[in-house]
Parts: sequence; structure tokens; C-alpha cells
Amino acid sequence: MPWELPRDLDTPALVVDLDTLEANVASMAADLGARGVALRPHAKTHKSLEIARRQRAAGAAGLTVATLGEAEVFADGGFDDVFVAYPVIADGPKRRRIAALAERIRLRVGVESPEAAALIGGALGPASGLEVLVELDSGHHRTGVRPADAPGVAAACAAAGLDVVGVFTHPGHAYAAPGCPDGAARDEDAALAAGALALARAGFEARVRSGGSTPTARLVAGGGDGAAGEAATVTEQRPGSYVFNDRIQQALGSAAGGDVALAVATTVVSVSRPGCFVVDAGSKALSLDHVDFLEGFGEVWGWQGAVVTRLSEHHGIVEAPARRPAVGEVVAVVPNHVCPVVDHFDHYVVVRRGRVVDRWPVDARGRLR
Amino acid sequence: MPWELPRDLDTPALVVDLDTLEANVASMAADLGARGVALRPHAKTHKSLEIARRQRAAGAAGLTVATLGEAEVFADGGFDDVFVAYPVIADGPKRRRIAALAERIRLRVGVESPEAAALIGGALGPASGLEVLVELDSGHHRTGVRPADAPGVAAACAAAGLDVVGVFTHPGHAYAAPGCPDGAARDEDAALAAGALALARAGFEARVRSGGSTPTARLVAGGGDGAAGEAATVTEQRPGSYVFNDRIQQALGSAAGGDVALAVATTVVSVSRPGCFVVDAGSKALSLDHVDFLEGFGEVWGWQGAVVTRLSEHHGIVEAPARRPAVGEVVAVVPNHVCPVVDHFDHYVVVRRGRVVDRWPVDARGRLR
Repeated sequence: MPWELPRDLDTPALVVDLDTLEANVASMAADLGARGVALRPHAKTHKSLEIARRQRAAGAAGLTVATLGEAEVFADGGFDDVFVAYPVIADGPKRRRIAALAERIRLRVGVESPEAAALIGGALGPASGLEVLVELDSGHHRTGVRPADAPGVAAACAAAGLDVVGVFTHPGHAYAAPGCPDGAARDEDAALAAGALALARAGFEARVRSGGSTPTARLVAGGGDGAAGEAATVTEQRPGSYVFNDRIQQALGSAAGGDVALAVATTVVSVSRPGCFVVDAGSKALSLDHVDFLEGFGEVWGWQGAVVTRLSEHHGIVEAPARRPAVGEVVAVVPNHVCPVVDHFDHYVVVRRGRVVDRWPVDARGRLR
Repeated sequence: MPWELPRDLDTPALVVDLDTLEANVASMAADLGARGVALRPHAKTHKSLEIARRQRAAGAAGLTVATLGEAEVFADGGFDDVFVAYPVIADGPKRRRIAALAERIRLRVGVESPEAAALIGGALGPASGLEVLVELDSGHHRTGVRPADAPGVAAACAAAGLDVVGVFTHPGHAYAAPGCPDGAARDEDAALAAGALALARAGFEARVRSGGSTPTARLVAGGGDGAAGEAATVTEQRPGSYVFNDRIQQALGSAAGGDVALAVATTVVSVSRPGCFVVDAGSKALSLDHVDFLEGFGEVWGWQGAVVTRLSEHHGIVEAPARRPAVGEVVAVVPNHVCPVVDHFDHYVVVRRGRVVDRWPVDARGRLR
């Protein structure tokens, strides 16, 4: 294990190693800076003002979030340039919330349907300053339109009085299997180029061409000159998980073991059954995120092959441990996917060289709306 | 859909129908009361003081929780008889917490190893009043010892100065498939009887014989007279999910559609792809709990066969809808398993006859420790 857990933790605990976190923050900022690509990190991963401040200090050009509620938390914390990379539906109480937020900060939101454009337009007053990006499907097949359909969405936005500033996509198919990030990065780049070109032909300048995922962030070429209709390469990236990394990022080759900044500290509560032991981190701590190319839901750091193969809410069952631990022993589990794990905790235990140096709230925890 | 969603919800929202909830609370209390079995409902399901108060008013004899943190919340809320049905490890900060809690309320905790007994004993002052129950494995194979091994654990408890009052088990294998609850209920009863008999032979009176799961709660015979060593039937049950019910309880036959008191209200955010639509309830709202005998992660209430087949953090993909909804339409999703869903939300929207009548906090949300 590259870094040590402190003693006397109350478990399960969300532990972050500050040296590793700072190295991850600096490295992504430097790599994208060298490519001329703006970094707008996705704060849904960490939900933390402290971490967002470190990203900003390292040069991040604004933040990305998943919900209006997350945007409100970061606006309250002094962040004045936030992109909600989601097809926001401004209906019900969200009408008032999106209008209030657009008055306070530079707010961008995603749009992928004429209906959503009309709802957002209807919620806002004149000259709201809100900027919208048309969401493109680059191969993940979740939300987003085909590049050829982007002009129709942009026209609906314009008709609703909204300022279309660009296109965005999430190449989530990078996570399908090891080996996929390269192709997904090409798809991401191609979709953004095609969407920007289609918009240019319809009279919209896509000055923002925003891609985003940790596995593809360093693979997509940058350096677009900002003029749409010609070299429409990516202008910004929205990686999130890179601040912590996890088992999936390691399996995809986006991170090495030494880049893992977060683990769940958990106590052995049972060794009653042979060949396995049970820890106090269950699905409410580790989450059930699972991928076909990894066994189980997490692994005990430093214990070769000890995988959390079964979870109930407050129990994690670890099979095939290299040794039999003692009841009461505390181990570190590296989860599959760090984002849902963070959402289960109210604070981070921040460590440096094995000592607790701080405790940070998960400020935007559970801001689902 | 047996009850209606109110209008103008901010989604995703955790919506509870009060009439159905009250009927569920009353029905379980009446059924167990008729069998002479005490009801000690598991509050990890709802984590709500309001709901626990209703359970108490209906006759619940104390509460069950999963963690010391949940016990602290309910103790703060005026509940003075709480069982932590978990193999508690009283080390680190939990030493002080368990001692403080045992001073304030009648506290019971689970023990299934000599090491845990020694740690709890070491954490407590003399005459703490803490009661311990030995956890038995009745077939779920998670934690708990075989009935024959219960005397060894009880002896370690006694050596550590702890008051052994009984045995408990969770027949989680009831959830393996439809048809399993009957056998699991028999296993539950048999394990409690065998554990109590083994303890009696070793000189311990198992006056509490505690079973617990919603699918088996009504299946296990009750009416024990409290004397161990003879008719050692169950004396109390700890069902949790019955207050709300969910897809799994319906599939197991423990609940009918009309017994479902909770749904996640969610907004359609995308209809861009044919044959499916996307809602704003993802894995951070619906959870990834999944069972082999049900497709997907939830279903749209009242839409025959419309199942949430894929989740990312803030997206739920619904396939094969009976009709194509409009972007902005709000639908109700019944989740697979209600317990982890509740943990994602900070409050319930409480409705009666389609109108919002209250808003209850999820008081013990995220008390993982």
C-alpha cells in the first residue's frame, strides 16, 4: 500500500492521502495545459469545496457539476463559473432555482431537446446570461443527440432566447472494457468536431467544445483555435475521478496504483467462516458499482487477491485473503468507482504520511436535484 | 398506480404515501401481536424518527438499528430501548461511544466472536447495563456462528463481564429467490431454537430469541413462553422493509402492489433515443441493488413492463415503455430494495391522497459508523 492509514479511525471511513491528491490535481492540470485544453473538472466526484479550491489554484477554468443542487453548493462556496453537464429540465421548483443561479454566477447548462430549451427559456428573465451547450451522443448512448441533430436543438434554444455557446459530450463507453478509452477518445473528438461543424453551417458558433472523462482526458487532442467550422477539436475537458482514482481507472490504464488517493478504511467484524472475512464497509459505503472486467466491488489494498465479492448494506465479504486477519483489524479497501462511494460519507479524513491532518466535509453530498 | 404523485415536485424525490405507510405499520404490529411475538422493527430502512414514533405507537417493543451511529440518533430522539443487530467492534472512538450510549438507554448489541466480546467488555465501566445477543448463522452465511458454537461466544461474553440475554439471526437467504422465504423461516426458527438450547446446556438463559426479515416475519411461529431449553421459539422479530415495501418484497410474496408506500418521483430528461427514455433518478437515487429474479433496478409504476434497465449516477434508462413520455413528465419508480434508496435522500415528501402533507427528515441518513 503506497500510503498508510492512520490509527484509531472510526470505521467505515473515507480516507484521502493529501500528497497523492495534490499530485493528481497538479498532473492533470499540467497535462491538459500543455495541450492547450482548458480543465473544467467534474466536482460530482469529490463534492468538496476544499478540493475544488485546489483544482482552481492549479488552473482549473471553472467547475463541472451534475445537478443544480451541486451548482448551488459551489456557488455558495465562491465558485462563479459552473457548468451543469446534464440535460437540465427547468420545471417545478427548478424554474426559480435556475433563474436565481444564473443571476449569481456564470452558469452553463446542457440541453438536448427542444422541450428542455423551451422550459429553460420560460424560466429565465431577459438577459439572464445563461449559456447553453448542446449535448451530443458520442457513442455512450445515454443522453445527447447525433451531431447532425444538434442544429435543431440549437435553433430551439435560440427561439427560447438562450445563448448557445457550444457542444459537449461524455464518452462513457470508454468504461466498457480495458482498451476502450482510445476508441472512445476518437469518438469524442469526432462527435465534437461534427457537432461544431453542423452548428457552424446553421449559423451557430460552437466556441466551447467540451469533452469529458478521466480515461479519455489525456487522449483527446487539443489546441483548437476557437474558430468553429474548421479545426473543431476539443477546447475543454471535464474529468472527475482523476483526483482520487480507483480500481476501474487502474484497470483502464488511466492510473497506476501509486495514483490512488482514496480508500475506505474498514474494520474486520467477523472471521467466523473459513476462507473469508467480513468488514464493516457494505454497499452503503463501497456502493454496488460493478464492471464486467473486475471481480467484486473493491479490493483490500496490499493484500494480493483479497476482493470484496459480496456486499450487503453494512457487511462486505472478502474472499480468498492472503492471511486471516484478527477481529478488530482495520484494512483499506480501494473501491471500484470512487464517485458513488464519496456520496455515502459526510466527511473525508485527510491524511499525510499516515497522520490525520484535516477533516473535510463532503459539501455537496446528496444534492441529487 | 394505487396512489397519486403530487404536482410540482423537485425531482428526484423520495415520496411516501401516508395512508399506505400507516396501514403497513398497523398490519405488521397486529399480525405479530396475534402470534405473541414482540415487534422490534429495523429502523435502518426508514432512518426516521417520525416513522419510528408511529411504530412505537402501534406497539413496537424498542427498535433495531445497524450501527452505533443510528442508535445515537434514535436515542437523541427519545428512544430508550435499541438493539444494534450487528457484530459491533468496540475499538477506537467506538469505545467511548458504546459506553456513553449504554449509560443513556437500554442498549443491546450483537456479538459473534470472543475478540468482540473482550473489546466491548474493555470499553465499558462496571454495571453498564449493556445486554448482548449472540449472533447465529441460520443459512445466510454472512456473519454469525453455528448454534453449537454459541456457548463459546457466550462464555467469552461472560468472562468480559457482559450480560448475555439471548440469540439473534438474520435469515437473509429468504431473499435468494421467490419460494425461499418459507424454508428460510424454518431455518431461522430452528437456528434460534438450537442456539437457545445450546446456551441453556451451558448455563445461559436465552430469554430473547430474535429473528428478523420482512419476508419471514409472518412465517415464523411465535408464542414462546420465555423459558429457554424447552420450546425455544422466536420471541421477537425485526422486519424493516415492511413499512414501505418494494419490488423485491412483491416478488417474494411478502407484499402486494397496494402495500407499496414509497416511490421515487423522477423527471423524464431525454427521449432522444428510440425505444427508451431517460429519467433523472440514477444510481445515486435508486441504488444498484439487484437480484437475479427481477430485471433491472426499478419499474415505472403503472406502466406495464417499463423497467429501469441501466443506471449511471444521475441517469436511469427505461426500456420498452408502453408509451413515449414527454420531456419534463414526472413518473414514479418503485425501486428493487427500499433501504439503500432512502439513504440517498435527506428527506421524505409525505403525501396523502395526492397532496403533500409533510416533509420528514431522514434523520439517521448516512450514519454508517
